[in-house]
Amino acid sequence: MKFTKMQAAGNDFILINGFEYEIEDYNGLAKKVCDRHFGIGADGLMVCKDSNVADIEMRYYNSDGSRGEMCGNGIRCFSKFIYDNNILKKEYFKVETLGGIKTIWIDETDGVARTIKVDMEKAIFEAEKVPVHMGMDRVIDEKISVDGKDMIISSILVGVPHTVIIVDDLKNTLVNELGRKIEKLDIFPRKTNVNFIEILDRNTINISTWERGAGRTLGCGTGSCASVVIGHLLGNLENKVLVNTEGGKLTVELGPDYEIYMTGDANTICEGELKI
Amino acid sequence: MKFTKMQAAGNDFILINGFEYEIEDYNGLAKKVCDRHFGIGADGLMVCKDSNVADIEMRYYNSDGSRGEMCGNGIRCFSKFIYDNNILKKEYFKVETLGGIKTIWIDETDGVARTIKVDMEKAIFEAEKVPVHMGMDRVIDEKISVDGKDMIISSILVGVPHTVIIVDDLKNTLVNELGRKIEKLDIFPRKTNVNFIEILDRNTINISTWERGAGRTLGCGTGSCASVVIGHLLGNLENKVLVNTEGGKLTVELGPDYEIYMTGDANTICEGELKI
Repeated sequence: MKFTKMQAAGNDFILINGFEYEIEDYNGLAKKVCDRHFGIGADGLMVCKDSNVADIEMRYYNSDGSRGEMCGNGIRCFSKFIYDNNILKKEYFKVETLGGIKTIWIDETDGVARTIKVDMEKAIFEAEKVPVHMGMDRVIDEKISVDGKDMIISSILVGVPHTVIIVDDLKNTLVNELGRKIEKLDIFPRKTNVNFIEILDRNTINISTWERGAGRTLGCGTGSCASVVIGHLLGNLENKVLVNTEGGKLTVELGPDYEIYMTGDANTICEGELKI
Repeated sequence: MKFTKMQAAGNDFILINGFEYEIEDYNGLAKKVCDRHFGIGADGLMVCKDSNVADIEMRYYNSDGSRGEMCGNGIRCFSKFIYDNNILKKEYFKVETLGGIKTIWIDETDGVARTIKVDMEKAIFEAEKVPVHMGMDRVIDEKISVDGKDMIISSILVGVPHTVIIVDDLKNTLVNELGRKIEKLDIFPRKTNVNFIEILDRNTINISTWERGAGRTLGCGTGSCASVVIGHLLGNLENKVLVNTEGGKLTVELGPDYEIYMTGDANTICEGELKI
């Protein structure tokens, strides 16, 4: 079976052309190929399939074989894969995912996708929907105490629950220690991702993300979006911001009603033939 | 550039045919392709080259780009790679490595290597050479204290320093906690690998290894060899033993003067074309 390995912002994926292969057990295949010692190694597996409601379907599987809803970095790899390989040669298309239908814009050079823009839809602010329980309708710029130390948090939903904390100096922030504790605070009944951001200027931030259930990650697409939304809402950022994640750069643009558009690249690492 | 990814006992490697490519910076290439998120991902890179002193040279690079001497699981992958790809189609050959010239025997079916036997040379018992400093010539079956708890250790050199500890129940052994502490005890001036073994019968052991500088590993070829040597020396094992590592099975055979022969398989995961 042919495969392609790609990465976007340090998130890596195995891509398979689902029009060429009819496989019954994609869950088992994902577990096998994503294993980092006995397989090729990746964060997830993505397969393209026909869709009745969009131009194409993206089936996303986590490395443990479970089905995943959506992945901001993953869908850029998926889009480049189907574009570069002429599976769907359009610069504008819609992708069916378990997390809804996503709109994609491709910026190409010589038939190769250079950057991919993804409509990440609107941020959701209602505390009940995030969910975050602090006895108020929205949790924006609110004080909490972690290990006796005061911190200012903002919590919104961008696909998954995200908490954003603005810090003065990201290098000296204990991302892992604080992230691990904040993720599991009682005020977050479904836990939360934790994004620490350092604002460099009104159009640029650095970010480190602690992912709910996964730990420190090189780059989190939805976390980058949530961070720009909060920075803008608090008056610190414009509506188009370059986000430096630990795994790469993303650009996040906001519409007037906090519609979110994320733009970034995706990279092909290798193509080959699976032998297991 | 064409590559093959293989694994043996859970140790995974990228293989490159050095007769097809002339590359100046293999160190940089190793770092790039072994990266588990931005590259293919592997424990190391191996390249075949012409040798003046053996049938072929194996150049081994660690994932950090540094040159490695030898790797028991790696040389089985290397041998299967050159055999299956008709680079050197012999069932018996010698391989030049930075750790000396190694003899290989291939057991094949239909031109494909099934198991690979490696001459691992003799175990070295002299405490000064291991090195282990306890004021005695050999450290075999000696008591040490770790966190106030007595443990019986044996320390020998099989390529690298190995300490072997026989336990009653491997599942309930704190391999990581004890390994981390024993590795760095003052009696080991160059540190030590730590192998915990459970003897199932006179021909079978289970093993968990804590590798010096690398931590818990799925399978350690030299650690498996050292463990069988110690088990035999103490009268608990015959001279041919099946070793169940966490990553796969190995057979270790001993000669009359503790010459060591290790036999195991190696597996091709994928073949492809590098795009980075």
